[in-house]
Amino acid sequence: MNRRTFLGSAAAAAAVTPLLRLGSRPQPLRTNGARLNSWLSRFDSIGRTPGGINRVAYSDADLAGRAFTLDRFRDAGLDPRIDTAGNIRGLLPGTVPSLPAILIGSHVDSVTDGGNYDGPVGSFGALEVARSLREQGVRLRHPLEVVVWQNEEGGTIGSKLAIGDLQPADLDKMTRSGKTIREGIARVGGDASRLADAVRKQGDLACYLELHIEQGGRLEQAGLRIGVVEGIVGLRWFEVTVTGMANHAGTTPMDQRQDAMLAAAKFTVAVNDAIRVEPGRQVATVGRVIPSPNTTNVIPGQVVLTVDLRDLSPETLSRFTARFEQIARAIGSATGTRFAFASLVSSEPALADPRAMGWIDAAADALRLTRQRMPSGAGHDAQEIARIAPMGMIFIPSIGGISHSPREFSKPEDIANGADVLLNTVRAADEAL
Amino acid sequence: MNRRTFLGSAAAAAAVTPLLRLGSRPQPLRTNGARLNSWLSRFDSIGRTPGGINRVAYSDADLAGRAFTLDRFRDAGLDPRIDTAGNIRGLLPGTVPSLPAILIGSHVDSVTDGGNYDGPVGSFGALEVARSLREQGVRLRHPLEVVVWQNEEGGTIGSKLAIGDLQPADLDKMTRSGKTIREGIARVGGDASRLADAVRKQGDLACYLELHIEQGGRLEQAGLRIGVVEGIVGLRWFEVTVTGMANHAGTTPMDQRQDAMLAAAKFTVAVNDAIRVEPGRQVATVGRVIPSPNTTNVIPGQVVLTVDLRDLSPETLSRFTARFEQIARAIGSATGTRFAFASLVSSEPALADPRAMGWIDAAADALRLTRQRMPSGAGHDAQEIARIAPMGMIFIPSIGGISHSPREFSKPEDIANGADVLLNTVRAADEAL
Repeated sequence: MNRRTFLGSAAAAAAVTPLLRLGSRPQPLRTNGARLNSWLSRFDSIGRTPGGINRVAYSDADLAGRAFTLDRFRDAGLDPRIDTAGNIRGLLPGTVPSLPAILIGSHVDSVTDGGNYDGPVGSFGALEVARSLREQGVRLRHPLEVVVWQNEEGGTIGSKLAIGDLQPADLDKMTRSGKTIREGIARVGGDASRLADAVRKQGDLACYLELHIEQGGRLEQAGLRIGVVEGIVGLRWFEVTVTGMANHAGTTPMDQRQDAMLAAAKFTVAVNDAIRVEPGRQVATVGRVIPSPNTTNVIPGQVVLTVDLRDLSPETLSRFTARFEQIARAIGSATGTRFAFASLVSSEPALADPRAMGWIDAAADALRLTRQRMPSGAGHDAQEIARIAPMGMIFIPSIGGISHSPREFSKPEDIANGADVLLNTVRAADEAL
Repeated sequence: MNRRTFLGSAAAAAAVTPLLRLGSRPQPLRTNGARLNSWLSRFDSIGRTPGGINRVAYSDADLAGRAFTLDRFRDAGLDPRIDTAGNIRGLLPGTVPSLPAILIGSHVDSVTDGGNYDGPVGSFGALEVARSLREQGVRLRHPLEVVVWQNEEGGTIGSKLAIGDLQPADLDKMTRSGKTIREGIARVGGDASRLADAVRKQGDLACYLELHIEQGGRLEQAGLRIGVVEGIVGLRWFEVTVTGMANHAGTTPMDQRQDAMLAAAKFTVAVNDAIRVEPGRQVATVGRVIPSPNTTNVIPGQVVLTVDLRDLSPETLSRFTARFEQIARAIGSATGTRFAFASLVSSEPALADPRAMGWIDAAADALRLTRQRMPSGAGHDAQEIARIAPMGMIFIPSIGGISHSPREFSKPEDIANGADVLLNTVRAADEAL
């Protein structure tokens, strides 16, 4: 990988911003991509099991992963500390101490049987950006803070705590590690009795930028290198209970049935058709289906299924919610069944800051990396921080669109590209804010 | 209920058979319907639990039910014995000792959380027929044997043993009672080391006649009193495995999915459409559906489902089997999924003897009971005995078409009617055979 020295002072950089917008800035900065990828390679052995990476938050493997990460903070010259919420934070001072920090980072915990890229790419990418700035003698005006959030996969817990958005009762919820969140916070070095100390408020941060793997196949499919995230989709999770009448599969004539599974199947097909017939990037999934009695020779009397609906637009979410309920009523009438909807989860879209999208666009262009704007269909810590600060996210391709799987993979050059884009985006933010 | 004395000898009865066929026979025989219904009322308390009747074969409640039943054999003047297969048998001698027996009966075991009608109606109905013949001084030429089969609900075990059709390995299969079949046979008074003693061969029986509740809603729907069973449907049970690719429900665009649940839903709808578009009484049911990972936010990568297909015609079963495979191929191509079929169970239709259907028709007509011919969509002991002897079955209405449920119910007058039809059918068989 190339390393280049930053060519001017912060003031000079600010002066050339208009030129950068025209794409004429002479030299973008570069991170040390080889070093970043070697960190990821070493990290790959922590929590590795035959089923995949298992660094579930608060587990022994998670603690081992965090210990490795703390060492990388030290390598980067950032003196790490663990805040009361259990998030790891390290600061690179800026030249104007009164300015709020630019925050960059991601997470290092994994799902059960997951991969080594979802989280670590952005965490070590952020550390590499800080180290590159130091090594290359680039001084930002703003402090640059690197964060590694705790327990992203269990529901963006660390970033929720960072904006003071976790209910006290949630602290006693059980997690996949077998520990409650409260126990987990103690385990990773936080202090659940002083969580307010870790909270950031509106105005505390200049912006938040996160590098992450796409976890979908759009970039690879389009042959593009960088995704400029427009926002993180809002979602609606419904549990739909279809009630018919259980009856004997052999003795009940076809025209006398109230088959809840047939009604659920018609609904599943109709939801898919409705979502696909409209242009747009909305998605809907029937992921869980539990018929009862779920026996070969009994017509199902009840089916409980879930619908997962996502889009960047709250209006689209509302419109499809109404459409699904309308579809259910029609199918219920036609099949002698009843449909009841219950809301399981409802989250609003978190939009990226338009300036942040512009900095990412420009950084990718300067690096001659092809790009597109796109929504994030998955949730990220960025969606929480977007509520108190301007947010931007950079995606790199996931091969085969696979994530949350041991087959999750992103190419080393894409990882290096992502870190380079983050580095130049940080510089642009520092200049613009 | 009326009781009438039989008007002539067996020879005289034989002489009037042609008249009976013309519907001009003066007086059909009657059973004591009130007595039959009082037996059923008393039987209702045995194995009664808050969830329904639980006289699962080989359970304590089943043993109590059999003890009650043995007393009813004795009331009817039949000296009961338990054969080595564990079936209860009692004989009313005929006037021509060399003739093979006419066998009538049913079962008294129940499903888990079942009702009091499926089995007991035919068992006590057969006992009432024998008792009425004795009381009314009607001597048949053939011996009349009453049988109460053990463990019908666990797979027509007693009747399978009676035709020598249970594999030795099956004896060690676990049943719902927590006992193996072998242990169950010992528990009900059989002797699994001498099962051959209980086997009947072709020619051993003049015919087999069984009264049973319909377990479906056709008779009630049509407002008819008696079903003349044309046969017991054959069935094909398939396990269909639909394989797609599990992926993130938020990040995977709709046009890049290989959604096994969507494919399974399309298949479920198409199977239903295919079955219904053709005239006929064929039925098909998707009763069991197990997606994986079966989680709200993951596109299902695999679905295992079952199809239960039934009809009286082996040709229809074969044709629909091929049609379902063709449907699966088309849906697999359209959705990027693969369908694999495995046969779970395959049983051939068991047709009723046309003469037996004629006797039942005539008996119903003589009793002025409306009737229709119809298949039995459920399995019965009669399907086993049909392999060694002419078989006939009489159905009475099930209210709401409900069975295998505590809500199972047949009206006392329908139960009495069914026993009356059985009585006159026995007499007709005795005359004709």
